[in-house]
Amino acid sequence: MYEDRIRRPALMNKLMSAEQATLLFKDGMTVGMSGFTRAGDAKALPAALVERARSTPLHLTLLTGASLGNDSDGLMANAGVVARRMPFQADAALRRKINSGEVMFIDQHLSETAEQLRSGDLKAVDIAVIEAVAITADGGIIPTMSVGNTANFVQQAAKVIVEINLSAPLALEGFHDIYVPGARPHREAIPLLTPLQRIGTAAIAVPPERIAAIVITDSPDSPSNALPPDDETDAIARHVITFLEGEVRAGRMDASLRPLQAGIGTIANAVLHGLIDSPFHNMTMYSEVLQDSAIELLDSGQLKMASASSITLSAAMHEKFIRNIERYRERIVLRPQEISNHPEIVRRLGIIALNTALEFDIYGNVNSTHVGGTHMMNGIGGSGDFARNGQLSIFVSKSVAKDGAISSVVPFAAHVDHTEHDVDVLVSEWGLADLRGLAPRERAPLIIEHCAHPDYRPQLRAYFEAAKLGGGQTPHVLEQALSWHARYQREGSMLVK
Amino acid sequence: MYEDRIRRPALMNKLMSAEQATLLFKDGMTVGMSGFTRAGDAKALPAALVERARSTPLHLTLLTGASLGNDSDGLMANAGVVARRMPFQADAALRRKINSGEVMFIDQHLSETAEQLRSGDLKAVDIAVIEAVAITADGGIIPTMSVGNTANFVQQAAKVIVEINLSAPLALEGFHDIYVPGARPHREAIPLLTPLQRIGTAAIAVPPERIAAIVITDSPDSPSNALPPDDETDAIARHVITFLEGEVRAGRMDASLRPLQAGIGTIANAVLHGLIDSPFHNMTMYSEVLQDSAIELLDSGQLKMASASSITLSAAMHEKFIRNIERYRERIVLRPQEISNHPEIVRRLGIIALNTALEFDIYGNVNSTHVGGTHMMNGIGGSGDFARNGQLSIFVSKSVAKDGAISSVVPFAAHVDHTEHDVDVLVSEWGLADLRGLAPRERAPLIIEHCAHPDYRPQLRAYFEAAKLGGGQTPHVLEQALSWHARYQREGSMLVK
Repeated sequence: MYEDRIRRPALMNKLMSAEQATLLFKDGMTVGMSGFTRAGDAKALPAALVERARSTPLHLTLLTGASLGNDSDGLMANAGVVARRMPFQADAALRRKINSGEVMFIDQHLSETAEQLRSGDLKAVDIAVIEAVAITADGGIIPTMSVGNTANFVQQAAKVIVEINLSAPLALEGFHDIYVPGARPHREAIPLLTPLQRIGTAAIAVPPERIAAIVITDSPDSPSNALPPDDETDAIARHVITFLEGEVRAGRMDASLRPLQAGIGTIANAVLHGLIDSPFHNMTMYSEVLQDSAIELLDSGQLKMASASSITLSAAMHEKFIRNIERYRERIVLRPQEISNHPEIVRRLGIIALNTALEFDIYGNVNSTHVGGTHMMNGIGGSGDFARNGQLSIFVSKSVAKDGAISSVVPFAAHVDHTEHDVDVLVSEWGLADLRGLAPRERAPLIIEHCAHPDYRPQLRAYFEAAKLGGGQTPHVLEQALSWHARYQREGSMLVK
Repeated sequence: MYEDRIRRPALMNKLMSAEQATLLFKDGMTVGMSGFTRAGDAKALPAALVERARSTPLHLTLLTGASLGNDSDGLMANAGVVARRMPFQADAALRRKINSGEVMFIDQHLSETAEQLRSGDLKAVDIAVIEAVAITADGGIIPTMSVGNTANFVQQAAKVIVEINLSAPLALEGFHDIYVPGARPHREAIPLLTPLQRIGTAAIAVPPERIAAIVITDSPDSPSNALPPDDETDAIARHVITFLEGEVRAGRMDASLRPLQAGIGTIANAVLHGLIDSPFHNMTMYSEVLQDSAIELLDSGQLKMASASSITLSAAMHEKFIRNIERYRERIVLRPQEISNHPEIVRRLGIIALNTALEFDIYGNVNSTHVGGTHMMNGIGGSGDFARNGQLSIFVSKSVAKDGAISSVVPFAAHVDHTEHDVDVLVSEWGLADLRGLAPRERAPLIIEHCAHPDYRPQLRAYFEAAKLGGGQTPHVLEQALSWHARYQREGSMLVK
């Protein structure tokens, strides 16, 4: 049994149930789990840890690649298993615990967690829990639909628990390229010069004696929860495409553009989807996650190849992907997230970064994470890795939320994740503001007139005019700067009646 | 005459006065000038342009490495010559023009200007004005005390004006290492693996026919205006050293630490000065500017070598440097600022980044640029290049300014240049807050109790307690978040009477 999945016979005696494997955990431990944007997460151990916590106190520091599927984050948070969490999450129940102060959440650039573990700036991982397609004859672990921080957790953990997921086809072998940078200060350059290049190994090396348990599961990834395109996301896509056509016309790039990155979620997915009707071809992606739109673009032939750390698809697209998996293997590379998001590579390749903003202010500062300036949504994810270092940093947002009660364009971002220095282009369904080479006082009219909802433009103009009376590089009326957010809290709308 | 300075005889006929050279300029042009933190700036052309503007309208976009000396920025701004300015400045008169909205200032990461010029995201430079030690036989330009963006301006400009400064000794030849990354997307890895490594050429290559004018000057750099250490900067230095000793004890680095970066200015200079009495040795610097403290550390032997883009010294230290210049040439490398500050290199080497904050908030967001949230001081400079990508990002500030009327620790940073994601350690004269691996709610008590001035701690504690009632990952009382800044404007002090 399982000879194709556990190819090193001596490891067969590590087979056990998830319940047995939970006995390896102790209160206070730091645990690194595979999983990135609902893809490649361990399925059995989270549920078993929740069960075990009913009888035994278990408060863990949980690190992952990014968000988990299967409601694992919420179930573990509600059971008290997750006391500290990094570097990203996207679960409603966990979010409540974070915002109530019960769970400490450390929101990190996705390229940095591995670096901080390696340098000892974060506490070392005690146990790694890793979903795998198979274990090779020499003990290597073949990941499933994501790589995330898995290689780093495995390097560091005293004990490694492998979940072999029978629902992940053996044909996934060969998608992954595992390369882990050396310790500083004597590190080599990362030898990756083109998006499809392979610089590492197909499996994650691990000394077999550190594999403490092997658990068999047969449970699929949670499907993507991105919403389908709508009129507004279509309009945003059109503005982005028109802008990129202009870049090609101006000779700043050819029709293959630059390697594309697109953040997780509905709007970025819709913009990529819109590229199907664009004149661009021979494109490449160098991103952290591939959503349905990436597969569509591969199928249409406009996208030549795609590199990422994870593949997160709808149920229908996942089925199609698996059915035609042979044809994708030569065109998709899955990498550790510190490589998919690495500043060195992002800068070298000149990525076009496309990320979603919760809100942005009239000077171009972006809030990606905090609803109302205080409450965590998901986390910064990789947006900073790409926005800071790419050739073009584009942020997209619908101009309003909550049926118009919230303007995404505000006088002052109530939380800043991306500063004015790292934002080149802002886009809403109303239009696009190209901020390159402009001073804050020049950006404000563009952002107000091109991106804000018309209902909010008079208020924004009035703010900007009043602010200029006080002078400054970035004029503000400090007493009113956050008044829009306060008004929403108080009256249920940012709009002045 | 000048055969040792102009070694290509055919160029002798380009010798002219600065006044003649100004005739090359046309209204609306983009001009790139050498100069970085008062070092290596052109001396004659700025003054001549001011003179010419008395009779002829001349509104230029002026790019430099960083700040200019000799009051050039202020004189040009007052004469209307500077209409747009990037990426950095530090001049009182120019600052006034910026804050009144008369001059458009684009505040940029110092590693990015060259990149944006190369990719066409900024308008191309028409004329480069470059201070030089000499022009070589094959037409190469040997810079003086800084490299900055000079190589990039020269690559791009249709016309190059060279100011040969006779006060810059010929012995400066050999300090520089000129390497310019290729165009994207087909760029090689930057081959620099250690701080002292040379990867380029000693001179900036330029086709001789593009040299449009050679002007002779004999005028020294403006001396550094860093203030001497005082009790508070001494205390900050002690906290930083104690922290780094702890890092060595914990095994995260050895006593040579990691390559050090220190921002321009009094506090960072004082902290480096404090390292003379530290147990660290065999240290290296990989920074953007070398101040007096770097020379002191080279002389004490604790610093093995130093790489930067500029050397900015006091008058006395400059004299000593020139007197002993032979002994520094093997231990100092001057690089283009896109290499001294390059994310790829900063991340690879694992830099310890030490930069000055104007203010920071209780959650660790840093304001480096905007006084009162609105008025530009100098600019972000290279702080973001190093803070984002280094192994350790340390920000230092005195706890109060204006005799206690302004607290540097505030509920909400009135402008954010460095987000909570990019700040590891905060230091004031009162103590140090180590924020690594902590959630915002855990950071606030540390920052308040360790860094804030005792007079302001009760107000900060009260704010944090009130904020927590509203919940959230980053609790705030939005109506009060910027009230400290507003109170200072209104009452002349942030302190509640």
